[in-house]
Amino acid sequence: MGRYLVISSDCHAGLPNEQYRGWLDPEYRGTFDEYLSARALMEAELAERGLRNPEFAEEWESENAEGLLGGWDASRRDAELDADGVVGEVIFPDADAVSGGASAPFGAGLGATADVPIDLLMAGARAHNRWLAELCGASPARRAGVAIVPIFDVEAAVAEITRARESGLRGGILIPSMWQPHAPYHDPRYDPVWAACSDLEMPVHVHSGAADRASYGEHVGLYVAEVRWWSTRPLWFLLWSGVFERFERLSFVTTECGAFWAPDLLWTSDIVYDREHAAKKLGAQLTDRLSVRPSEYFDRNCFIGASNTRRRELARRYEIGVGNLMWGNDFPHPEGTWPHTKEWLRNAFHDIPVEETQQILGTNAAACYHFDTAALRPLADRFGPTPEELGQTGEDLGKWTDLAAAGRPWLTGKEAVELPVGD
Amino acid sequence: MGRYLVISSDCHAGLPNEQYRGWLDPEYRGTFDEYLSARALMEAELAERGLRNPEFAEEWESENAEGLLGGWDASRRDAELDADGVVGEVIFPDADAVSGGASAPFGAGLGATADVPIDLLMAGARAHNRWLAELCGASPARRAGVAIVPIFDVEAAVAEITRARESGLRGGILIPSMWQPHAPYHDPRYDPVWAACSDLEMPVHVHSGAADRASYGEHVGLYVAEVRWWSTRPLWFLLWSGVFERFERLSFVTTECGAFWAPDLLWTSDIVYDREHAAKKLGAQLTDRLSVRPSEYFDRNCFIGASNTRRRELARRYEIGVGNLMWGNDFPHPEGTWPHTKEWLRNAFHDIPVEETQQILGTNAAACYHFDTAALRPLADRFGPTPEELGQTGEDLGKWTDLAAAGRPWLTGKEAVELPVGD
Repeated sequence: MGRYLVISSDCHAGLPNEQYRGWLDPEYRGTFDEYLSARALMEAELAERGLRNPEFAEEWESENAEGLLGGWDASRRDAELDADGVVGEVIFPDADAVSGGASAPFGAGLGATADVPIDLLMAGARAHNRWLAELCGASPARRAGVAIVPIFDVEAAVAEITRARESGLRGGILIPSMWQPHAPYHDPRYDPVWAACSDLEMPVHVHSGAADRASYGEHVGLYVAEVRWWSTRPLWFLLWSGVFERFERLSFVTTECGAFWAPDLLWTSDIVYDREHAAKKLGAQLTDRLSVRPSEYFDRNCFIGASNTRRRELARRYEIGVGNLMWGNDFPHPEGTWPHTKEWLRNAFHDIPVEETQQILGTNAAACYHFDTAALRPLADRFGPTPEELGQTGEDLGKWTDLAAAGRPWLTGKEAVELPVGD
Repeated sequence: MGRYLVISSDCHAGLPNEQYRGWLDPEYRGTFDEYLSARALMEAELAERGLRNPEFAEEWESENAEGLLGGWDASRRDAELDADGVVGEVIFPDADAVSGGASAPFGAGLGATADVPIDLLMAGARAHNRWLAELCGASPARRAGVAIVPIFDVEAAVAEITRARESGLRGGILIPSMWQPHAPYHDPRYDPVWAACSDLEMPVHVHSGAADRASYGEHVGLYVAEVRWWSTRPLWFLLWSGVFERFERLSFVTTECGAFWAPDLLWTSDIVYDREHAAKKLGAQLTDRLSVRPSEYFDRNCFIGASNTRRRELARRYEIGVGNLMWGNDFPHPEGTWPHTKEWLRNAFHDIPVEETQQILGTNAAACYHFDTAALRPLADRFGPTPEELGQTGEDLGKWTDLAAAGRPWLTGKEAVELPVGD
């Protein structure tokens, strides 16, 4: 084993807000100017109410002034990822996660909700997608761009999926985590979207950002407590309503929501499917759209863009499925691991077997997004970390034997295992 | 150690629907007759749509015909609990969890939502509470009755809390899990409720039942996937908005939602409070209402009515807090352990240390609900299971040493521990 081939399944790119103007359809530019003014006022108000941390913003932005230009500048971007050891990336919108200075027009990006009229969301999405295709075109082997596609207008969504794929965006689509007040994602009206994504090999993504903000008042802690749930929710809406049964080649990815929740989701879902004790009283409708256990759909159709994987999560990888986990550095967001990825990787992976590390750091994402690993290998040979650099001396590896054998213990019936539960 | 003193922190009682008529305020009896007719039609429709399992219902009800009378008959109830080894109980509404045949008027019980007008919810609650006080009066040392109190009309709620406590209901109150469309539970308008419950030593409960049903269509799996979340949600609304800071003696209990979710909730909440990496960018508002870590409020103010505890949950008890977990048999619901509690306990607890077993099976609930354990001890000496009957031979107990020392590893910094992750 030489150097790891590292693909970040969670990166972000976006133009400084005002620069999106030229990428918008002309009829939306007036509305866009109004949107920018309103946005500036809102940011000032959030700061006023103690919902921002200006000291942190200043420190982050001054320490990383050069690197943050990589949020939209193609060659700067490559240089930053090289230095971080990352040779391939999956690109979501909204480069600035501190004060929203480089985010898709009309809030069409990460936090998109249907509070914004559908045609504005779609106009913002198209503007971003056009620009993103150009960014990806500068390093096509390294960059899998994810098109923003609000899917509430199904016909317009299918058209944009097709156009985005033709423009070179092969990373798939980002849909709003929250469908309200439109129909929930189990509704068959969305089938043409799932069909198009399946046919064009475009993974469907949710990414943390939106939440039930209207219910939180001033309490930021409530947002933090719930935001991952609102973005993982579509996963079980698709699963239990049979979308993965009807579209067996559809890929569905849950990005930057952590991975810690997956084992219990699979455990509770599988034992209900198997009509364990508490589920015996439920009617036939429970399982009549599913031909296999929930965890089997999960292994076939689902990936977790787990971003900055924690040891607590890696310790659960045999329950999650080693093949379902994709690491990401969240470049250029401050909650990610850039520009200190190698230290973070060493802390998290020092006792993880090399083959599993390679899956989680790169091969799983390569499969999900059809990266040409042969084309990336020369870059990996220059920039990727080695197992030795991650501290993987091999001494600790025996600790995982029982855990690996237990797999998903509710299915294997095996129980006593060794498990680190650290941070 | 002799026999365990077992208290079920999750039991149910309710009259056959039509028998509530006489307990209602007279002005609601006409509306009640209409409600019963509508309910019968709805049940028939649910069966028609495959959302019921009539074979299961018939089998359950014929096999347990005598015992199910204990749902409302006081002496039958004592006999069933004796045989199950249970000497104290916390009583929630809705005895019939199969076809809803013994549930509080107007749906005021477990699944209460604000779809029903507040005055009807409150009328149904009062009728149930009056009857429940009588049931509890027949065995006051054994029975802690939980009053139903929809708290959206705060003044009426405080009056009912006071009345219920005076009538002998010392189990606390059950509030609707879902507040929509009323104000979220972080709102200070509810402070008089928290104050009354704190002063009167009435624990506040949520119990699984309500969920976002309107979003599920025909998909029962979605209900099952989410129902626990909707009932655990109030816990973090109270916590992050500082309710436990302002009412330090308030007890809050989350019943029949499992316990598996608690470790990750505490982990994610504590590290955010401590401004770990990803939380650095958040504003000062995040923590300005909390003087200690979320897990400290949890240990001081919160209990989990964990009902039928699974081994997978017991294995996490040092993270949850051994003192926070309360077992329950869910009598007389089919998803509980009655009438086979001893077998269930043996399976779950065979390798759990005796002292911890006694906490989870009884002493924690005794503290939360102020049971007089001296008064219950003679019953326990007759009916409680022995450690030997639970298979606790002591051979396995060493396996927990590392796990106990690690406690909450995100706080202790300890990592490698032995953990069974079975069912």
